[in-house]
Amino acid sequence: MSTFRTTASASETVRRNGVVRSASRLVPEEVPIAFSYGGSTHAVMMATPADLEDFALGFSLTEGIIGSAAEVAGIEVVAEGPGIDVQITLADDAADALRTRRRHMAGPVGCGLCGIESIEQAMRPVPDVGGVTLNLDNRQIVEAIALLNGAQPLHRETHAVHGAGFYIPGRGLLAVREDVGRHNALDKLCGAVIAAGHTGAEGAVVVTSRLSVEMVQKAAILGSAVLIAISAPTALALRTAEEAGMTLVALVRGEDFEIFTHSTRIFSGVSADVA
Amino acid sequence: MSTFRTTASASETVRRNGVVRSASRLVPEEVPIAFSYGGSTHAVMMATPADLEDFALGFSLTEGIIGSAAEVAGIEVVAEGPGIDVQITLADDAADALRTRRRHMAGPVGCGLCGIESIEQAMRPVPDVGGVTLNLDNRQIVEAIALLNGAQPLHRETHAVHGAGFYIPGRGLLAVREDVGRHNALDKLCGAVIAAGHTGAEGAVVVTSRLSVEMVQKAAILGSAVLIAISAPTALALRTAEEAGMTLVALVRGEDFEIFTHSTRIFSGVSADVA
Repeated sequence: MSTFRTTASASETVRRNGVVRSASRLVPEEVPIAFSYGGSTHAVMMATPADLEDFALGFSLTEGIIGSAAEVAGIEVVAEGPGIDVQITLADDAADALRTRRRHMAGPVGCGLCGIESIEQAMRPVPDVGGVTLNLDNRQIVEAIALLNGAQPLHRETHAVHGAGFYIPGRGLLAVREDVGRHNALDKLCGAVIAAGHTGAEGAVVVTSRLSVEMVQKAAILGSAVLIAISAPTALALRTAEEAGMTLVALVRGEDFEIFTHSTRIFSGVSADVA
Repeated sequence: MSTFRTTASASETVRRNGVVRSASRLVPEEVPIAFSYGGSTHAVMMATPADLEDFALGFSLTEGIIGSAAEVAGIEVVAEGPGIDVQITLADDAADALRTRRRHMAGPVGCGLCGIESIEQAMRPVPDVGGVTLNLDNRQIVEAIALLNGAQPLHRETHAVHGAGFYIPGRGLLAVREDVGRHNALDKLCGAVIAAGHTGAEGAVVVTSRLSVEMVQKAAILGSAVLIAISAPTALALRTAEEAGMTLVALVRGEDFEIFTHSTRIFSGVSADVA
């Protein structure tokens, strides 16, 4: 597996408490990452060059190119000039499906970056997770965020990246992934979850960032019924979570938080046994 | 000009200081916004439905579709189902150039969202602003951020959007624009600046967010030589600003800040006359 530098030391002039001095600070690397399927570039994203296999797997999942980890036959990470080409080999059926989909994509529209090709696609229906049984009590929400805050080495160094974790009640955080982009961090997490043989239904997705509709879409595609965020949601994220049967908890600060949708999954006291 | 709602009231269950109660909170709207040129959709973005004419103008500028406001002959904002179609009519020369560019775009790659089609394009050279004379003193940096913080009505209501402002030393903030996305906020600002007949060289771009490379690219295309951010930069943003001759000031907190590139534009005391 290739390893790339994820931080750089930057020289700077600091003014603090009225005193001006030279200093240096660690800043996160940001690199163009191309995803290629069968030799054709599908998308290029500005991202943190870490956990690229997870990123490829998660991106393929949340973009609807694969339905499971088994549909990826191989991933090669290749440095290419100033960027990185992540070359994904799909299993036969998934490769056929992608070729068919590409033939139906017309003209210059067709965003590799986010998969949005039209207003309709931006509003694409997401999987219904309303039937997923997952209960958390108040203490576990606070714990999930506390664990996430403690498991972000790149953020600790740079104070400038987002994190996404997968919290299984009673077991803690299965995985945490970081990236300069919050969508990328969540895609990496989705990849890590399915690579480990888990399903989204087993736990809650926990993120450091705000909740745009795309965060809800990605969590629903993973199959997770609970999404917990440190920061605030958009109106469209809430409407999408409401329709998808997803519990959305946001603005978690210390022991305080706000539940916006499907609050019955969150218990006030100690939770009952988790199914 | 069409007006759309920019916030919604969300019902929620709040847990604060151990007490659980029902409440409501204002959250920012997030809407798919399509940009069409000559009847063809070019890009769809999730954005705050405000200042869409500025957004169209700024997006067209920072994507290299136009070089000046005069190259846009008209902008129509049309509600379309769950989204908004912003229909841009280009002046003849710009329309011809876009048609030529589209013919050269191949296959499903070609991201309307961010204009990134390849690793090479992600790393596209940005305009050199090294020759731009603009000097700020310490006090003006603090003032620019303070003015920006005080001029964000949507953020005051929702605490969940980004802001971008254009600060002209001695004159204050020319314009402030807000959006759920930081790139969108900056594109809207770029549009507002050129719509008002100003050039980027006259002032500093001031943003509430972190500085990715795309923020530097957009500010340089506007022609601004000073970019000031409340939050931290990426390594690639710094390298790009260094090469472009742009002064990058970040992590502005109260009276404190850090200057990363081309620090000679920032004076410690009261600034000399501004050219």
